[in-house]
Amino acid sequence: MTLSGELFIGSSVVPASKGGMKALNPATGREIEPEFAFGGEAEVDRAARLADAAFDSYNRTSLRERAEFLEKIAERLDAVRQELAERTSLETGLPAPQLEAEVAKTAGVWRQFAEVVRQGRFRQVAIDPAQPDRQPRPRMDHRLQKISIGPVAIFGASNFPISYSVVGGDTASALAAGSPVILKAHNAHPGASEIQAHVIQDAVAECGLHEGVFSMVRGGGNAIGEELVDHPLIKAVTFTGSEGGGMALFRRAQLRPDPIPVFCEMTSVNPNFVLPAALAARGAEIGDGFAERMLVNVGQACLKPAILLAVDGPGFSEMRDAAAARVSAMAARPMLTPGIHDAYETGSQARRQSGAEVVTEGPEPAGEWEGRTRLLEVDGEHFVADASLGEEVFGPFALIVRFEKTDQLLEAARSFRGQLTAVMHIDEPDYKEAARLLPILERRTNRIVVNAFSHPQEVGYATIHGGPFPATTDSRFTSVGMTAIDRFLRPVTYQGFPDTLLPDALAEANPDRLWRLIDGQPTSPV
Amino acid sequence: MTLSGELFIGSSVVPASKGGMKALNPATGREIEPEFAFGGEAEVDRAARLADAAFDSYNRTSLRERAEFLEKIAERLDAVRQELAERTSLETGLPAPQLEAEVAKTAGVWRQFAEVVRQGRFRQVAIDPAQPDRQPRPRMDHRLQKISIGPVAIFGASNFPISYSVVGGDTASALAAGSPVILKAHNAHPGASEIQAHVIQDAVAECGLHEGVFSMVRGGGNAIGEELVDHPLIKAVTFTGSEGGGMALFRRAQLRPDPIPVFCEMTSVNPNFVLPAALAARGAEIGDGFAERMLVNVGQACLKPAILLAVDGPGFSEMRDAAAARVSAMAARPMLTPGIHDAYETGSQARRQSGAEVVTEGPEPAGEWEGRTRLLEVDGEHFVADASLGEEVFGPFALIVRFEKTDQLLEAARSFRGQLTAVMHIDEPDYKEAARLLPILERRTNRIVVNAFSHPQEVGYATIHGGPFPATTDSRFTSVGMTAIDRFLRPVTYQGFPDTLLPDALAEANPDRLWRLIDGQPTSPV
Repeated sequence: MTLSGELFIGSSVVPASKGGMKALNPATGREIEPEFAFGGEAEVDRAARLADAAFDSYNRTSLRERAEFLEKIAERLDAVRQELAERTSLETGLPAPQLEAEVAKTAGVWRQFAEVVRQGRFRQVAIDPAQPDRQPRPRMDHRLQKISIGPVAIFGASNFPISYSVVGGDTASALAAGSPVILKAHNAHPGASEIQAHVIQDAVAECGLHEGVFSMVRGGGNAIGEELVDHPLIKAVTFTGSEGGGMALFRRAQLRPDPIPVFCEMTSVNPNFVLPAALAARGAEIGDGFAERMLVNVGQACLKPAILLAVDGPGFSEMRDAAAARVSAMAARPMLTPGIHDAYETGSQARRQSGAEVVTEGPEPAGEWEGRTRLLEVDGEHFVADASLGEEVFGPFALIVRFEKTDQLLEAARSFRGQLTAVMHIDEPDYKEAARLLPILERRTNRIVVNAFSHPQEVGYATIHGGPFPATTDSRFTSVGMTAIDRFLRPVTYQGFPDTLLPDALAEANPDRLWRLIDGQPTSPV
Repeated sequence: MTLSGELFIGSSVVPASKGGMKALNPATGREIEPEFAFGGEAEVDRAARLADAAFDSYNRTSLRERAEFLEKIAERLDAVRQELAERTSLETGLPAPQLEAEVAKTAGVWRQFAEVVRQGRFRQVAIDPAQPDRQPRPRMDHRLQKISIGPVAIFGASNFPISYSVVGGDTASALAAGSPVILKAHNAHPGASEIQAHVIQDAVAECGLHEGVFSMVRGGGNAIGEELVDHPLIKAVTFTGSEGGGMALFRRAQLRPDPIPVFCEMTSVNPNFVLPAALAARGAEIGDGFAERMLVNVGQACLKPAILLAVDGPGFSEMRDAAAARVSAMAARPMLTPGIHDAYETGSQARRQSGAEVVTEGPEPAGEWEGRTRLLEVDGEHFVADASLGEEVFGPFALIVRFEKTDQLLEAARSFRGQLTAVMHIDEPDYKEAARLLPILERRTNRIVVNAFSHPQEVGYATIHGGPFPATTDSRFTSVGMTAIDRFLRPVTYQGFPDTLLPDALAEANPDRLWRLIDGQPTSPV
């Protein structure tokens, strides 16, 4: 595919209205062709009007039609796998084979959402049938289904340039919900974004859907994002990125005349708690596994295990040594953008000034934006006293926290803000202490892992990628997994309807063969 | 029960720290004894700390324990039915028999939530079992349940002084979810609030629960509400009332360092669309029913049908005449508070200045705060041109909108902001036009009613009381019905857990006999 650098507004590609940019190869520091267009208010408005115009027909697609559309996107993703991985690697410095795997996994997610659509359980149908003889007054027939909330603006993320970008899970779950999508492409990988936008735009055309179902815009600075969040025809927003960026969008949307939901997934240090029996039995294994996971994607992952907490005792030094061996052996690698690299350097400096000591560092970087790996250590008292030590440093950085006794470790657990995940490394003798730790963690994270690391993540029905603030802006939802679709759905009740006017999901004949809650009882379609 | 006028902080009753007030009898304009205490920051902080201290144990109550607690509240409500209705009638001017029925219905809602708790479906359990042989890497066991979001602050409403007040559906659904509750009592019915608070406080003690499960505060002005919304230990807020009041709380909570969900149910005119065949067949019946429902509770109901829209033609004048007959025959009755009465007079004046003409008024009021019934009419062109005509006048006021053709009526439907409900009056020949109207309404309301009025409301599994802004601040949820509990729940995934550390809902033995989603399939407990 020859990259045009243009914006995607419905079925059109449109040129820049506000200048443009070139992609940067973080491995060489050089610009890559071609020039990519920036748009502004006019393009956002056009895309939003098209999305609004597409809403009624897209929201009313049959489950089969909608599932086939999602599967078409999966097929087209498979077809561009290699090309997409290569361009993405150039723009991000991430290895092409890893990116090929990311494309394949993402295509799988689209197929999973197609299955979610076919099952139709996301409609959460409930029927309270009429009770004409009820006293003191009859009950009318009530039927509830969930439908799309309306057009959604999605901000592509920098760090997983496929699975959290144009064709990422946010887009898949929004389209599955029946929401047209306007994607704000991340400027860290514009070529990769264009290839992905083509995949969706072509699938829209091939499936004969309204062109407004998908658009992709791009801009310099914050203006284009602000215009998206402000646009009255946009009904929800998702964002994955920094706490500062996410909160600016969130607060802006809450100041609209009509506030809208903004789901931001922002920051998490994914603390790992090692209890004494597990530490004694396999400290080295835990330290090694921790560091291995910490270093994935040059530490640029929302699920990176960043803080390892344990009471000093048998196994502690083995754990530290094993982690240190991994960290010191790992060469510096290019980070995603110069800005991310600078923030990494500043952040790891600050932790040192807060009293954490360097256990080890990796080799000196050869290239300008390479992230040097770092492992620091601090005692539990310092850690609890200085909240900044519990905050994220995005990059190949981790902190070991050493406690004198378990109560201190529990106190440290209470000091954490909201997290995407927390991990307990435990053996049977630890269960009693784990039962004390568990309610502390339940209040602070939406995923608790035992004896493994939280990264990589499954994408399933029991998957949650979310958490109390500042992990996300709304702990009631997830951005990954089959229930990510719930962010974009609202319930509508149809009361006293003639069968002929009811949507398929609610019709007496149940043509989609859905599970339905009838009078409060789950009822199979057969 | 002798009213003490004190605040309820956990198991204590505490005196005023900031002055106090007496209730006003709106029928006589006279104050009623006793004096009721106002609290401030200190009481809010004490209640919030108690709620936080209660959280771990209350959130972990078994389904049976929690259901029995809710049933105990229902029993105690039954026991105070007459006393509560009498005091409430004194404070609100609403008739005691109607209030007795409201107590009975509300006790029924507590029993329904007890049933929701016993069923345990609110936990939305999903299990993706381990797949140790999966390629390229094994899948770990993942188990998801929903748990409480934390302590909730609930603002009692003025207009349904039982079902939307201290023992209202917000409190029932929050306690069902496992959330401790801090209730901010409405100053329009302090004695009624105290009787209700006693019901809950006594049930907490009788069930042996942590005293922090429930507190009730009261204050003058807005300060106490702001302190509740700002308190870091409060994790969600609900409010039923005006758009101005709701949005002030909502926006304040979004400016917290950690924004929290605020579910406000605010304003709705519940438009009724009458299509031509239904109009011709039963214009008079529709007009009469509309006015009868409009006048319930002196028009002080969120589900009051306030706007009646139809194309002029056969049946139109019969509809107007029937509505006018009801409205002109209804005597003025005391409104809930002097402030509500003043806003009513201002609002109905403003509609007249916007060009709506008076069809009829009821008799001149005899008392100072009595609401005079009013029916106005305006043509469709005026209505679409002046958005203020589509806004709520809280009180016994309604507007008929007369169109020349159906397309104009559809245009008017598009001009509405978000609504709690919309009604279509249709006969079979109208179905084609109704199918055009339906998608317009689906975008603007969460409940669509055919050939009935939206008030009164069922409380069931398919019930929704919510809608797009400004009907509520989040169209994805409901404040009434069995799924109102969803506002206070967040998902937590337990990955790789030993069975012994799993909560009951997720344990392999399924001791609560819950329906669970296993590998994406709904699975019965038997």
